[in-house]
Amino acid sequence: MRRLIIDTDPGVDDAFAIALAARHPDVDLLGVTTVAGNIGIEHTTRNALNILSLCGRPDVPVAIGADKALCRPPRSDDAHGSDGLGGHAYNIGTSSASVDPRDAVTFMVDLLTASPEPVTIVPIGPLTNIALLLGAHPGIKPKIDRLVVMGGGIAGGNITPTAEFNVWVDPEAARRVLAMEDVPVTLVPLDVTMKCAVGDEWLSAVSSANAVGRELVAMTPHYREFYLQEMGRDEFIMHDAIAVAEAIRPGILKTTPLELDVDCTDGPGSGATFADRRNGLKPPTHRLVDVALDADTSALTGFVRDELTSRY
Amino acid sequence: MRRLIIDTDPGVDDAFAIALAARHPDVDLLGVTTVAGNIGIEHTTRNALNILSLCGRPDVPVAIGADKALCRPPRSDDAHGSDGLGGHAYNIGTSSASVDPRDAVTFMVDLLTASPEPVTIVPIGPLTNIALLLGAHPGIKPKIDRLVVMGGGIAGGNITPTAEFNVWVDPEAARRVLAMEDVPVTLVPLDVTMKCAVGDEWLSAVSSANAVGRELVAMTPHYREFYLQEMGRDEFIMHDAIAVAEAIRPGILKTTPLELDVDCTDGPGSGATFADRRNGLKPPTHRLVDVALDADTSALTGFVRDELTSRY
Amino acid sequence: MRRLIIDTDPGVDDAFAIALAARHPDVDLLGVTTVAGNIGIEHTTRNALNILSLCGRPDVPVAIGADKALCRPPRSDDAHGSDGLGGHAYNIGTSSASVDPRDAVTFMVDLLTASPEPVTIVPIGPLTNIALLLGAHPGIKPKIDRLVVMGGGIAGGNITPTAEFNVWVDPEAARRVLAMEDVPVTLVPLDVTMKCAVGDEWLSAVSSANAVGRELVAMTPHYREFYLQEMGRDEFIMHDAIAVAEAIRPGILKTTPLELDVDCTDGPGSGATFADRRNGLKPPTHRLVDVALDADTSALTGFVRDELTSRY
Amino acid sequence: MRRLIIDTDPGVDDAFAIALAARHPDVDLLGVTTVAGNIGIEHTTRNALNILSLCGRPDVPVAIGADKALCRPPRSDDAHGSDGLGGHAYNIGTSSASVDPRDAVTFMVDLLTASPEPVTIVPIGPLTNIALLLGAHPGIKPKIDRLVVMGGGIAGGNITPTAEFNVWVDPEAARRVLAMEDVPVTLVPLDVTMKCAVGDEWLSAVSSANAVGRELVAMTPHYREFYLQEMGRDEFIMHDAIAVAEAIRPGILKTTPLELDVDCTDGPGSGATFADRRNGLKPPTHRLVDVALDADTSALTGFVRDELTSRY
Repeated sequence: MRRLIIDTDPGVDDAFAIALAARHPDVDLLGVTTVAGNIGIEHTTRNALNILSLCGRPDVPVAIGADKALCRPPRSDDAHGSDGLGGHAYNIGTSSASVDPRDAVTFMVDLLTASPEPVTIVPIGPLTNIALLLGAHPGIKPKIDRLVVMGGGIAGGNITPTAEFNVWVDPEAARRVLAMEDVPVTLVPLDVTMKCAVGDEWLSAVSSANAVGRELVAMTPHYREFYLQEMGRDEFIMHDAIAVAEAIRPGILKTTPLELDVDCTDGPGSGATFADRRNGLKPPTHRLVDVALDADTSALTGFVRDELTSRY
Repeated sequence: MRRLIIDTDPGVDDAFAIALAARHPDVDLLGVTTVAGNIGIEHTTRNALNILSLCGRPDVPVAIGADKALCRPPRSDDAHGSDGLGGHAYNIGTSSASVDPRDAVTFMVDLLTASPEPVTIVPIGPLTNIALLLGAHPGIKPKIDRLVVMGGGIAGGNITPTAEFNVWVDPEAARRVLAMEDVPVTLVPLDVTMKCAVGDEWLSAVSSANAVGRELVAMTPHYREFYLQEMGRDEFIMHDAIAVAEAIRPGILKTTPLELDVDCTDGPGSGATFADRRNGLKPPTHRLVDVALDADTSALTGFVRDELTSRY
Repeated sequence: MRRLIIDTDPGVDDAFAIALAARHPDVDLLGVTTVAGNIGIEHTTRNALNILSLCGRPDVPVAIGADKALCRPPRSDDAHGSDGLGGHAYNIGTSSASVDPRDAVTFMVDLLTASPEPVTIVPIGPLTNIALLLGAHPGIKPKIDRLVVMGGGIAGGNITPTAEFNVWVDPEAARRVLAMEDVPVTLVPLDVTMKCAVGDEWLSAVSSANAVGRELVAMTPHYREFYLQEMGRDEFIMHDAIAVAEAIRPGILKTTPLELDVDCTDGPGSGATFADRRNGLKPPTHRLVDVALDADTSALTGFVRDELTSRY
Repeated sequence: MRRLIIDTDPGVDDAFAIALAARHPDVDLLGVTTVAGNIGIEHTTRNALNILSLCGRPDVPVAIGADKALCRPPRSDDAHGSDGLGGHAYNIGTSSASVDPRDAVTFMVDLLTASPEPVTIVPIGPLTNIALLLGAHPGIKPKIDRLVVMGGGIAGGNITPTAEFNVWVDPEAARRVLAMEDVPVTLVPLDVTMKCAVGDEWLSAVSSANAVGRELVAMTPHYREFYLQEMGRDEFIMHDAIAVAEAIRPGILKTTPLELDVDCTDGPGSGATFADRRNGLKPPTHRLVDVALDADTSALTGFVRDELTSRY
């Protein structure tokens, strides 16, 4: 059993990611923490509760995290619509659960402290909560097995030519986590998630399999339109589920150790994740991150489809 | 009784500030938290313990805080010498106390939670711990009466033409605290602390009064030389004690409400605290900070001198 | 006779500045060059021609300069209205002169080369043309007696809390001219121009004296409203004329030699002019600029008023 | 006959580039302009004169250009040694020619004006001279057929993880030329030049063919060592000659039209050239640049080798 905490800002692709983990027999989903990102914290928290309820897991505790980035004004886009779930947020039912009274950082500290074994945290939104956790409570780091982070893009961005959305929203948090900490990190950037895009056939299979799949797929049209406009990609790009897949099946992605930095300026690279790919003889100046640049795409998208179609 | 927590990176002027609060009859010094700044965290923590011991307060608990800034590489200068106390750190005796096992943020949360009344926090080092506290645990904010922050300079800096040292070390933390939070803040910048510089007469009075004064003054020559070289000021500029004085005697400084921002770039303004002094008719975009720009200088330096000479 | 070239982006206050020089008996106005700034280059060029014509000097040649900043996107405000002269541009008559066929930089090189003595250049707009002149043709520098630059603000800005408009529009050009060149510069920043603001009495005197004064004052209401909104100042602040006054009467402003830098970031200090006011013992890293921080205000505003009322 | 102007900062690879053009029967090499870059302007100018002399073309006029970047402090590395030619600068003989008395910008304007047909400019150093030319004298643009620029790296840098040397030295000039002008540009970035690296066999062929080849190859060891240390590449990477090859044989490189921006911050992307590769449906915000991302490598390196071995 892999103990997981998902840190998330649902978000259409976050919904798929949560559903992938929520009922997986190999996963003990200890809790979900929310963060502002795709949409404001009230929306991401409500969506997290309702997605867990939709997945039959209203028992998974949800704690509210950061309502803003570490130190910069809000940045947003409309990829996920005004409710965060492509206009479908109010159609998926309302959870009877309420949020945990603790803030997300305290909640994570408590879950990690109580866990007999190190826990995998899967941050699939801006890294604000994680940076705060590691910065405020460094003593908890030995209880973190690994961070499997959806974020960044080595060869380019989505929200800007250079920046991926999660990092762009809070570049300072990302720099802290990716370039200044020593907790093991597997980064799942656009370089691999864009390769795992799926089309109508995949979506139809998920939609027709069960009620959960139907609701998930009903969230996707607005999001797909955004990707078509911004990136010229007429597919469903399920970034976050790829990170959860790696957390469930370590090694399903092919990683390369890279020295990373994050652009915290307001210039054209703002929010970019830069890797040193020069292969020089000088030693790196800080810890390398395992960056997933490739995957067996059809195996991976098949894994996600099979889980979503078979567990619900 | 004013309940105080001092967040500090001793530091020569921090030592005076701690001594000012340590035995003041109107102060309940709940604890001291340390942060990397004037020198590394091991040094600032050791110095905090030993200064409290020197002041006869080894009972005040000390907790270790951030060993680095939120999201940028270390920045340092040599104002305080290689031991943080002008080469005098090993002459002031060794505390028999040990540090609190909790990290500084947890320690502050616990002290604040336990306090029946809101507590004044006096951050006199980089604002890393405070930004982490407010970011990670926003629910604690009602228990903070006020932050009395030594930092910044509206009309210019000390470590650079534009930046004051504490803000320069962690501009992102300062932006969070000064421009993005709603906790009441009184900022004590260079604009007022430079006016409260003292000379040989003041130092002689403190040095000759008692053993604590003698040790404090013995820390100052290296620090004074730095100010002479960098700023052309041949005086002792006791920045941090001015903030503690304001915490003990609210209103001893004259404040002006200003809209502030902090420069988080790597440009020539890096670490500067900018105020909008234009007085236009547009409403401010965020909360105003009470900035101490002036004081009755002789009353203030007299207050500090009298405390240091009479309590020990 | 002082040989002058005025580099300008008229602009309401530029109009006063041109009028101050256009008929002054001690001035040989060799030419006027235009630059984009307060408004686009077509407007500033047309305005320059028409203002010179209004002042009875259609013979002064005008050359078109930079239509954009050195390397950043356009920045603008509405201080001067959509025509650059507060909505009054089409009421002041149309010049019969046409622009010089040469670009502004070639034009300046030719004027400087032809002049038997060094020439004073008075840049009262963004410094784009001047940076290009000095960068492209460094051999011409000995023919420049002095640059008297209206721009910057040591204690704060107008268009932002930190930045003065001319520098804000092209910070890179300003950095080149103020911090990287060796041509003598007198900088006339907001620190002194804001002190030279005038009120209704002064404006009435100018307006009632002659037709030129009447037209100039008719340009001011929109501009005054901008300053009221942005800076809370209900006066006419004739920045540019102060620089021309200094060019005509060297020493009319009180200057302080300062080491300057210009903020070329996109942060909150973007476009700010920073001075090192620390007075340390270290030598400056580059050339000092004579910065006008003060003046005999009533003498100065009287000088401008008397010129405008007596020459036309 | 293609009329060429080479704008250069020799530099080891610049030497190969000049040699490639100097005697090519299809090239009319109108002049060479120098710029500070690989080494200071005195060195690059001396090297340009001596390389032309070595190639039997002391008649090609050389004019001195910018001794510093547009608006930032000097940046340098040691790739080319302290003399700019890998320690070999004083072994290649001294030209009897002297520099043109005109500055590089005036010289280019004069050459362009005099040319009956548009001229190709091949900037293979920092873009300072070109930015100044286009900014100061926009009327000359119709006389420029094309800029074939060696610079930038879409997938990463050489001097830093993100920046290529020429752009890194003067990012502001590069932004002007690549993102703000409308002159046709073919950019020859690291993406293609790194693919055209050659090894010992190629170098032996050139070295053994004639005296010019021998001197050129004698410059390379220091430069190769730099690339080995920084990039892990034990080859000779003749960046600049690839741009000259494209100028001589238009189309020898395969280009892709891309919207570019240049990072002018001081962050980790400083000096990077960013391309928008997202393929979205939105129109570009500025002119596209033809970026050479690929080539028939062996044909290209063969072309250079054959020229160098056969013309001398």
